[in-house]
Amino acid sequence: MPISTELTARLGIEHPVLAAPMAMITGSRLVKAVSGAGGFGILGGGYGDRAWLEVETAALKEFGRPFGIGFITWSLAKQPELMDIALQARPRAVMLSFGDPAPFAPDIKAAGALLICQVQNEELAQQALDCGADILIAQGTEAGGHGASRTTLDIVPAIIDFAAGRVPVVAAGGIADGRGLAAMMMLGASGLLMGTRFYASVEADAPEQAKQLIRAAKSGDTVRGVVMDWSRKLMWPAPFTARSLANDHLRRWSGREIELMQRADEIAVEYAAAREAGNFDIAAVFAGESVGLIHDIVPAAEIVGRIIAEAEQSLQGRRNFLSSLT
Amino acid sequence: MPISTELTARLGIEHPVLAAPMAMITGSRLVKAVSGAGGFGILGGGYGDRAWLEVETAALKEFGRPFGIGFITWSLAKQPELMDIALQARPRAVMLSFGDPAPFAPDIKAAGALLICQVQNEELAQQALDCGADILIAQGTEAGGHGASRTTLDIVPAIIDFAAGRVPVVAAGGIADGRGLAAMMMLGASGLLMGTRFYASVEADAPEQAKQLIRAAKSGDTVRGVVMDWSRKLMWPAPFTARSLANDHLRRWSGREIELMQRADEIAVEYAAAREAGNFDIAAVFAGESVGLIHDIVPAAEIVGRIIAEAEQSLQGRRNFLSSLT
Repeated sequence: MPISTELTARLGIEHPVLAAPMAMITGSRLVKAVSGAGGFGILGGGYGDRAWLEVETAALKEFGRPFGIGFITWSLAKQPELMDIALQARPRAVMLSFGDPAPFAPDIKAAGALLICQVQNEELAQQALDCGADILIAQGTEAGGHGASRTTLDIVPAIIDFAAGRVPVVAAGGIADGRGLAAMMMLGASGLLMGTRFYASVEADAPEQAKQLIRAAKSGDTVRGVVMDWSRKLMWPAPFTARSLANDHLRRWSGREIELMQRADEIAVEYAAAREAGNFDIAAVFAGESVGLIHDIVPAAEIVGRIIAEAEQSLQGRRNFLSSLT
Repeated sequence: MPISTELTARLGIEHPVLAAPMAMITGSRLVKAVSGAGGFGILGGGYGDRAWLEVETAALKEFGRPFGIGFITWSLAKQPELMDIALQARPRAVMLSFGDPAPFAPDIKAAGALLICQVQNEELAQQALDCGADILIAQGTEAGGHGASRTTLDIVPAIIDFAAGRVPVVAAGGIADGRGLAAMMMLGASGLLMGTRFYASVEADAPEQAKQLIRAAKSGDTVRGVVMDWSRKLMWPAPFTARSLANDHLRRWSGREIELMQRADEIAVEYAAAREAGNFDIAAVFAGESVGLIHDIVPAAEIVGRIIAEAEQSLQGRRNFLSSLT
């Protein structure tokens, strides 16, 4: 019993479940698994790595199912030519987050792709609508990786009210199961974008150890801040910060960001070495507050199937609440 | 078409909408308005003021509808005799928040009242269940006034999973409309506790100016921290902090809590004077993240009616999502 929304119609997909473009973690393998299961996988173009993007888009060329490609907008602006590579892969949609989408919107539209913009406040939503966004993602602070400060329960209805039906709004941040999808649909969302839940999938391009840390983490084990970015000399623009699993390095530097910045050269060497070695006592595992809801590492298709089954159960279970319908 | 849940059955009420016991703001007038409309008003016993409690409970004596009385548990522990006054008013339930309910549970039970415990993590939920809590409130950080750090979208499913059906779980924090109630019910919540939305009601015992500030505030205009407590020399135990509207005083002292504490005597005088004078540039208006959803000051009965109508609309609208039912 499929759950149909404006989003599923617009993207030409079966289930309103999107896999977030986690930088280099949502590779072609995860995209194929999610889109193949009737959801919508969005390739994690991230900061923009030409070689990676060429390989992963090539792998999607004969795929035949709708998929997306996502970028970190402020980073993409430094090498805008990567958009050509993305568009040549004929994605159904390009998702832009964290920056002004205006310079890229015309090419995306001209290529016949939809523009998905992830936003964290009304000003960003206005900016997105002004350049013709077809779908908005309202992202709450519970999300893993980069985001801002307003909670999902705050930002989702706020952006839905702001969009006022002009475009479908997708909820993101802190959701990892079907009751969460059902809840967001009650708020008026047209679907769900999940990162962390798909990180802990068989097909995510991430070290097994990182996936296991997500599986084992409890709610409250993640922290949002700048320590992990500054430790690799990455200066993200305001209002964006990153949420990751708390580890030794994060606990050591949280509250000491000034000193961290002063010693950035030294720490960046230490951090890069840890990352290379897969030492997650230092290197970040970017993950959201939904870690508490994630207890296994399974194929992405199983995640999509479960979420839809759970959401249907929740949506149909409402009969228990409305006396006259029981 | 009433929305019936385990909560409505247990409390003997018509609608699963509870008015939070905002200290001295949820007086007998607001309790009567909410319970009179089929919801459940909970008198805001707060820190415990004997004279106030006697007057307000006296006003509820011949009321004839189910209502509750709430306390700040760690403060009540300093004058436990106030529980007798509360129980003499024959409340349907006593709600305890922020502290160990164990010393009070036996008397509450012996008086034939239900025990409602508000919790912010699993440890507090366990403590509540251990002393026989009949209903749990899972409170997210979006809530106004005192609370902790986990978001509503995190804590509500976490506590629902933890309770595992033993008691109904009510959602609190960041919700001010019926789509929010419907969303929480999709997560498995049995109802909704709201403070801020009822603060901006005709019957709340609060200065009109404070209500107008809530009405005018936008999402993102509230801040959680200790400035407002420390400014009145109130040392709340960890992990609790308070969310209020940002004002001049809060902006001035946020990030300077150490100096604030060092100058507490002086600042407490300034703060008390501002409070007396109704100067909300300094004095706190405790309010939650739902301020962005609140645009009017109306009778509490209208709020209850609206929320139920909106929730029903959302719950029935799920038909649009399930293809086979359309």
